[in-house]
Amino acid sequence: MRVLTVGIDIGGTKIAGGVVDSDGRILDKGRVDTPADTAELAAAVVAMARSYIDRYDAVAVGVAAAGFIDKAQATVIHAPNIAWRNEPLKAVLEAGIGRPVTIENDANAAGWAEFRFGAGSTVDDMVMLTMGTGVGGAVIIGGRMFHGGHGIAGELGHMRFTRNGLPCGCGQNGCLEQYASGRALQREAGAIADSGGIGETLARARSEHGGLTGHVISELILAGDPGALEALRRVATALGEACGGFQAVLDPELFVIGGGVAQLGDILLEPVRLAYETSLPGYGERPVADFAIARLGNDAGLIGVADLAGREA
Amino acid sequence: MRVLTVGIDIGGTKIAGGVVDSDGRILDKGRVDTPADTAELAAAVVAMARSYIDRYDAVAVGVAAAGFIDKAQATVIHAPNIAWRNEPLKAVLEAGIGRPVTIENDANAAGWAEFRFGAGSTVDDMVMLTMGTGVGGAVIIGGRMFHGGHGIAGELGHMRFTRNGLPCGCGQNGCLEQYASGRALQREAGAIADSGGIGETLARARSEHGGLTGHVISELILAGDPGALEALRRVATALGEACGGFQAVLDPELFVIGGGVAQLGDILLEPVRLAYETSLPGYGERPVADFAIARLGNDAGLIGVADLAGREA
Repeated sequence: MRVLTVGIDIGGTKIAGGVVDSDGRILDKGRVDTPADTAELAAAVVAMARSYIDRYDAVAVGVAAAGFIDKAQATVIHAPNIAWRNEPLKAVLEAGIGRPVTIENDANAAGWAEFRFGAGSTVDDMVMLTMGTGVGGAVIIGGRMFHGGHGIAGELGHMRFTRNGLPCGCGQNGCLEQYASGRALQREAGAIADSGGIGETLARARSEHGGLTGHVISELILAGDPGALEALRRVATALGEACGGFQAVLDPELFVIGGGVAQLGDILLEPVRLAYETSLPGYGERPVADFAIARLGNDAGLIGVADLAGREA
Repeated sequence: MRVLTVGIDIGGTKIAGGVVDSDGRILDKGRVDTPADTAELAAAVVAMARSYIDRYDAVAVGVAAAGFIDKAQATVIHAPNIAWRNEPLKAVLEAGIGRPVTIENDANAAGWAEFRFGAGSTVDDMVMLTMGTGVGGAVIIGGRMFHGGHGIAGELGHMRFTRNGLPCGCGQNGCLEQYASGRALQREAGAIADSGGIGETLARARSEHGGLTGHVISELILAGDPGALEALRRVATALGEACGGFQAVLDPELFVIGGGVAQLGDILLEPVRLAYETSLPGYGERPVADFAIARLGNDAGLIGVADLAGREA
């Protein structure tokens, strides 16, 4: 008998939900806008979950969201985009849904999906870095999701990348996500556009499109524009350097790189690998990790949290 | 019936060995010089182990050494101070000793001892940093020694602390151990001595003693000398900043600080804690870790590896 679970990924603007089987396949999915009010948000998640349960007889529900989730995976300690502060989200949702609910950090859920069904399915020890607006992290240790002592480990985007660095929304400065995210790529591309020389094409594109979106920069990278490639190289180098440090601490077999920037594939991975090898303590005297691009795209969060829910059900 | 095991800690200059009971108590111990030749070194370890086994009927032997040890804990991939390169140390020693031998990285062994019998005995998730000549690291996750995907995780002293930083013996630059070790304390004290002002006492001590040893600096710190305290503050700040980053990645409940510098106790921990809180992503919105000074001193390595050997026997 196949077991179905519901996965729901709460983003800052959209809630994505779906029904997932035990092989990580999505049988049905949909999305709604994310309400700003927390009560309305919970009601929207409950309604989405109930509608899938009614139609597919799903046994459990997984809910992923950005934020610090406690070790019991019951309470959202703090969320950056939603007004949850010590919110007992598991209990709130279980009361409305009437099925077991598993809650998980969204970057962790995406990493778990890649580990189970995507780029990491052949290893036991994996680190995932999601290069989106920020940099999300997930750590799989010995085939298990790593949560740390308080539930909030693997915030790899907030590892300090350099001292006295750029300010970060977390209250710190120099965090990796200020140097290796999609937003960092935009910042670097803008700086190169300002500088003339190899930035001329970027500057022209910025005038034409009214700004340098990730899409515009990616098109220029794929077209081989030197300025756009230089912006990518800077961001990729930062990510690779940081992976050298993560290797010293976590020693994974594999780094999986996801998020919008990762759609560039090998054009991204090549300078990442170079910077990683150049930054690895004891290089030449130790086993090194492989790098791979994530395979499950934007669905990774809901697939991963649905799978986690199925394991607990 | 009490179970006894032998623990042997191979250092760069001395091999320390002892017989340890299942409560981590040392019943007997001794030390010999470390031979430079690897065959003589193995023979010295075998002789030391055999002498304890003959006298105490110990059931297993643990051997700790600096270096990268493979995931099977059988082979030393690379050691910094001993000419082991892919050395099948477990097999070599078991052939000579005739008892099961467990090999473990020395910083890991010391961390394990603190976790089992020392400052970390009340938590499940702990990070130990040993401030010796370098900075050693050990990570305990969910009550288990963390080894990573290739066996060499937890090299916390080689996490990059700052970009374009001081060169390190590992081939990298900017490694934490260049900023937060006993050697870093000596370097900072020397720089302050050179600068006049608050460095005058340090400069005078340097002339009197022919150099600034850790012992001389510690005496001045304990006497309240402003220059020596400033040197300590710099090193403690580096360590605390790094702990903020380790919190983001590993989220431990407790940091245990060991090594020679840690003998300063609260004088060290106070600035470490301050820098940690100042460097913690999401401070005020998350649980924080405690800090403690290691309790087992130089015996931690042999106690820890003896305990690990007992668990595998």
